[in-house]
Amino acid sequence: MTLYIVGIGPGSKEYLTQIAIEVVKNSEVVIGSQRAIDLFSNLNETIVFNVKDLQEKLELSVDLAIGGKDICVLSTGDPGFSGILKPILKIAKEKNLNKDNIEVIPGISSLQLAAAKNRISWDNTNIMTFHGRENIKDILKIIDNGSTTISLPSKSVKDMAKFLLDNGVDPKREIGICERLSYDDERILKTTLKDVANNEFSYMCVMIIFK
Amino acid sequence: MTLYIVGIGPGSKEYLTQIAIEVVKNSEVVIGSQRAIDLFSNLNETIVFNVKDLQEKLELSVDLAIGGKDICVLSTGDPGFSGILKPILKIAKEKNLNKDNIEVIPGISSLQLAAAKNRISWDNTNIMTFHGRENIKDILKIIDNGSTTISLPSKSVKDMAKFLLDNGVDPKREIGICERLSYDDERILKTTLKDVANNEFSYMCVMIIFK
Ligand SMILES: C[S@@+](CC[C@H](N)C(=O)[O-])C[C@H]1O[C@@H](n2cnc3c(N)ncnc32)[C@H](O)[C@@H]1O
Ligand SMILES: C[S@@+](CC[C@H](N)C(=O)[O-])C[C@H]1O[C@@H](n2cnc3c(N)ncnc32)[C@H](O)[C@@H]1O
Repeated sequence: MTLYIVGIGPGSKEYLTQIAIEVVKNSEVVIGSQRAIDLFSNLNETIVFNVKDLQEKLELSVDLAIGGKDICVLSTGDPGFSGILKPILKIAKEKNLNKDNIEVIPGISSLQLAAAKNRISWDNTNIMTFHGRENIKDILKIIDNGSTTISLPSKSVKDMAKFLLDNGVDPKREIGICERLSYDDERILKTTLKDVANNEFSYMCVMIIFK
Repeated sequence: MTLYIVGIGPGSKEYLTQIAIEVVKNSEVVIGSQRAIDLFSNLNETIVFNVKDLQEKLELSVDLAIGGKDICVLSTGDPGFSGILKPILKIAKEKNLNKDNIEVIPGISSLQLAAAKNRISWDNTNIMTFHGRENIKDILKIIDNGSTTISLPSKSVKDMAKFLLDNGVDPKREIGICERLSYDDERILKTTLKDVANNEFSYMCVMIIFK
């Protein structure tokens, strides 16, 4: 009946909201990555997705909602920030699931925790997400507009740093890397663009390009 | 010792994170609006601020942290989104409180819940906050750039709507009003610019200008 799209925050239990816990507990079927499902206990039915079968499992979630079940799909961070809200809405449209049957529960985005860890107000920063998009060149237009830029990189932060260097950005430009936010091995670094290009980081990073 | 700046979300308990509850419970002194403090129970010492003595109480919070206490200041939404992070950092600088003694706990912003209620992905929307700023004219430059605009109005939504009408924006432009998000009397409306200019709303509103 209702398809809930629930934000779980950056990854650790600490950032779950009360409403997310409540909605997940009451759903007949919970669909998410293993890592997301592991945050909860005593769930009813669960269905795990991975990168490969994500699309298929999102389609299944819409089908189950159409079939009359209360379904919940888990999203890292906030589903509305470079999250799974967009692909689900597309599928819902194709399959004629009424919009009123979709409910979005926001979560703490990795962007927000990255800003918080660096004590940055993000209302007047440039926010860019390159995840799965071919708009990486857009970043060159804005990184010198006087504001700090917070970005979710396209491939990896190393790749992104190389791109910036290749396009003439100062190798000494101050960069913040927020790796595996909220996990036990979280790292919050401040370093230079050159240094980022020469090192390896987890794929789970937010990159800050200071003004 | 540590000055925690804790986001409580849009207002109801449901949007509190586990970490916010934990940090608030363990603080020696909790400083916030009455409405924010009422979300928690069994607190140690509490200090209430209101619009008039906010600055004074924020200064006090910094003094108490310098004095060696674990202090927590509560912020609506996310402290880093048009919240109290900015004024506190200013005071901390003036009073020489070391940045390392400040910890920011992000919260669900009213912006995020407004987007969620309208099933909007906010990664490619225009996000504008006019709260306490004299930049309202900036909105005219961006509302026709092809993306939806989500804004925290400067004075009231009525005032903002009048400003837009006076500056030639189509009276039939589709507007979303998200009033008192997460409260029992929450209202989520879709209407026209003209209609917003002719009605009264709570000061607690997020305004969406659809593309
Ligand atoms: C598909 S996007 C999802 C973003 C998510 N909806 C959000 O609001 O954070 C995945 C990207 O988010 C970022 N990300 C998600 N969780 C993270 C974490 N715990 N630490 C650092 N970056 C994270 C990384 O840039 C990752 O490549
Ligand atoms: C000083 S700003 C604080 C914003 C806050 N830091 C956040 O992230 O939502 C106050 C403005 O936030 C918006 N706001 C805060 N809580 C709200 C709620 N529950 N419903 C609607 N708007 C809200 C209103 O526009 C209000 O004028």
